[in-house]
Amino acid sequence: MGMTLDEARRRDKDDPLRGLRDAFLLPDGVIYLDGNSLGPLPRAAADAVARTVRQDWGQGLIGSWTSGPSWMDWPRRIGGKIARIIGAEADEVVVADSTSVNLFKLMVAALRAQAERPELLLEEGDFPTDLYMAEAAARFVPGTRVVVAARADILSRMGQDTALVVLCHVHYRSGARHDMAAVEARARETGALVLWDLSHSAGAVPVALDACGASLAVGCGYKFLNGGPGAPAFLYVSRRVRDGLETPLPGWMGHAAPFDFAARYAPAGDAARFACGTPPVLGLAALEAGVDVFLHADCDALFAKSGALFAAFQDGVGAGLDCLTPTDARARGSHIAFRHERADDIIADLAKRGVVGDFRPPDLMRFGLTPLYTGFGEIHRAAEMVRACAIWRQG
Amino acid sequence: MGMTLDEARRRDKDDPLRGLRDAFLLPDGVIYLDGNSLGPLPRAAADAVARTVRQDWGQGLIGSWTSGPSWMDWPRRIGGKIARIIGAEADEVVVADSTSVNLFKLMVAALRAQAERPELLLEEGDFPTDLYMAEAAARFVPGTRVVVAARADILSRMGQDTALVVLCHVHYRSGARHDMAAVEARARETGALVLWDLSHSAGAVPVALDACGASLAVGCGYKFLNGGPGAPAFLYVSRRVRDGLETPLPGWMGHAAPFDFAARYAPAGDAARFACGTPPVLGLAALEAGVDVFLHADCDALFAKSGALFAAFQDGVGAGLDCLTPTDARARGSHIAFRHERADDIIADLAKRGVVGDFRPPDLMRFGLTPLYTGFGEIHRAAEMVRACAIWRQG
Repeated sequence: MGMTLDEARRRDKDDPLRGLRDAFLLPDGVIYLDGNSLGPLPRAAADAVARTVRQDWGQGLIGSWTSGPSWMDWPRRIGGKIARIIGAEADEVVVADSTSVNLFKLMVAALRAQAERPELLLEEGDFPTDLYMAEAAARFVPGTRVVVAARADILSRMGQDTALVVLCHVHYRSGARHDMAAVEARARETGALVLWDLSHSAGAVPVALDACGASLAVGCGYKFLNGGPGAPAFLYVSRRVRDGLETPLPGWMGHAAPFDFAARYAPAGDAARFACGTPPVLGLAALEAGVDVFLHADCDALFAKSGALFAAFQDGVGAGLDCLTPTDARARGSHIAFRHERADDIIADLAKRGVVGDFRPPDLMRFGLTPLYTGFGEIHRAAEMVRACAIWRQG
Repeated sequence: MGMTLDEARRRDKDDPLRGLRDAFLLPDGVIYLDGNSLGPLPRAAADAVARTVRQDWGQGLIGSWTSGPSWMDWPRRIGGKIARIIGAEADEVVVADSTSVNLFKLMVAALRAQAERPELLLEEGDFPTDLYMAEAAARFVPGTRVVVAARADILSRMGQDTALVVLCHVHYRSGARHDMAAVEARARETGALVLWDLSHSAGAVPVALDACGASLAVGCGYKFLNGGPGAPAFLYVSRRVRDGLETPLPGWMGHAAPFDFAARYAPAGDAARFACGTPPVLGLAALEAGVDVFLHADCDALFAKSGALFAAFQDGVGAGLDCLTPTDARARGSHIAFRHERADDIIADLAKRGVVGDFRPPDLMRFGLTPLYTGFGEIHRAAEMVRACAIWRQG
């Protein structure tokens, strides 16, 4: 079943992206299929962080905010690099806060801008924080009600009453991907706004926010962008909607002139109006190194390889396991998920043998298939192990 | 005027805290008097960050969240260390987000808990973000009005209508310090809550939150705590008020069981209920090294030295400059501020000669006098330079 080991080796040999693996420092003897949860360490990140600590902080001290490395510019500059990965203009993206806080800011801003519409629509079973934050944001905008609909009903549920739809572009469990263009088309018909959570899609699949006519998005730095543990998150606000939106968290970094220390708040002109507190410089240094790997790669080739890894893994595991993830490459992200009543034991067994995936309660195991540093040989071996372990644990 | 160079040298020689300077990596030829804006690099921070990047992230990967370094525990563990510096119990403090976001969370929580009271009271001319955030928070809690009072009127302005008072413990400009015990006593009389912004006092002066009967506080990691540029901030919620307060930003890190991915939000029992998104691990590693320096020092001796440095600096500069900072050590923080119409030029001139202070528009110059790494010899030299430069620029 699936490719043979020889085939896998040949595909690795012929893979023009194989060299990208050298951009990462991976532990020996580990097949790391959990980049969907925490991306591995880019070699350049270690150097960038060390330089930022010893040179920029240690030697440059306070001056580094505005000269030399000019940390004040980093949220915009790195945002501009992420923009290229998600199909946006540089001034539409800024790095700030956590995904949770960014969700809150854009939800409240959108709900206020659409105050005549009562509904905040979410998908049933989406990432819990997105749901918690939706409840919190709704409470802040009087008259808003949270509506949770099944995935299949989202498009039809959107209507004149819909202020905002919040959707994870790629689902954190199943890996299923929404058709962004179709959802945005329906949003234009109905006058709703859509806020995309790109946590499981930025750096994993092609994202074309501007081309789809998207308005709002947030995303995570530490998954497929390989920005390091707890990396700062990013947010996208399209030029089209930006001037009508106001941040609910007016911190000094979102101010048009932070160093004026003005008594009145005046928002920055670009997406940075949704920044808030002082930027986390060490985290930004690591994140930039992670993002840079993509900018040096052919992203079309990358995402094509991601599809090939998926097919090889799914074939290798075989039909005996209950796969939740759509087979069609356009309808999924870059991780694959299986349901198994012993999923937690299987993930633990595999980890002991150097194959790292992850478990999500109650019965899900996920494997991230990341073309930057994962080869077909590893996929062959990992699939074989998953299959054997599932049979073993079943028996 | 003031101490002679010989006296300064003798005081440095006799200073039992002088060895603490070796805990920092400071550039040669610089007298750094801006630790009130960005603390310098603790030697241990460089190593801690490198280890976190290369070993914990690079080798431990996803497993480091829950085993080995166990990053999940860091916001509480480091919060517990900060608690010792600000006179709190370990479970009353957590490291999270930025000061701005923490202000918002605690303001909204307090206003909601005191919904029958209409007033949110602040001090005129306090740090701008605190005022921006107060306006933002007030907007979220219907019926709240923001009242801004002169410093001298704060106590008398507190009354039955006061829901919450937000005060910077040490003022970012003048360096004037509020009498926390007196304000809290008045708060008990009136039933108001007080939220302290400790950004310019944590690590700079003795803080005794629990002993004063305080309820709420936030603070900054990158100033006197020397946690690095954009270090994560902290917040304090006393055991006494905690159960009655609910976070307005319910992210997964504030959940009682984050890894359950439960559909319903259930707050953690301790101060961590006010955490939100995934913790910024690299920033936490640096912050911990900064905080640890205090835990190894005799803080009473430290704050006494801070007072002596202040007196020496003020004497050295002389009466020719307009000093805004109270002379009484109990009524100020650890920085000294002068008003001068050429303040920006003076700060620039001094920086060229290796004396680093900072400028705050329109006419303020500030110098942080930090006993951890500043000696009397440097204070002597810096005061001499400030005095000469002011005369020069005046002329």
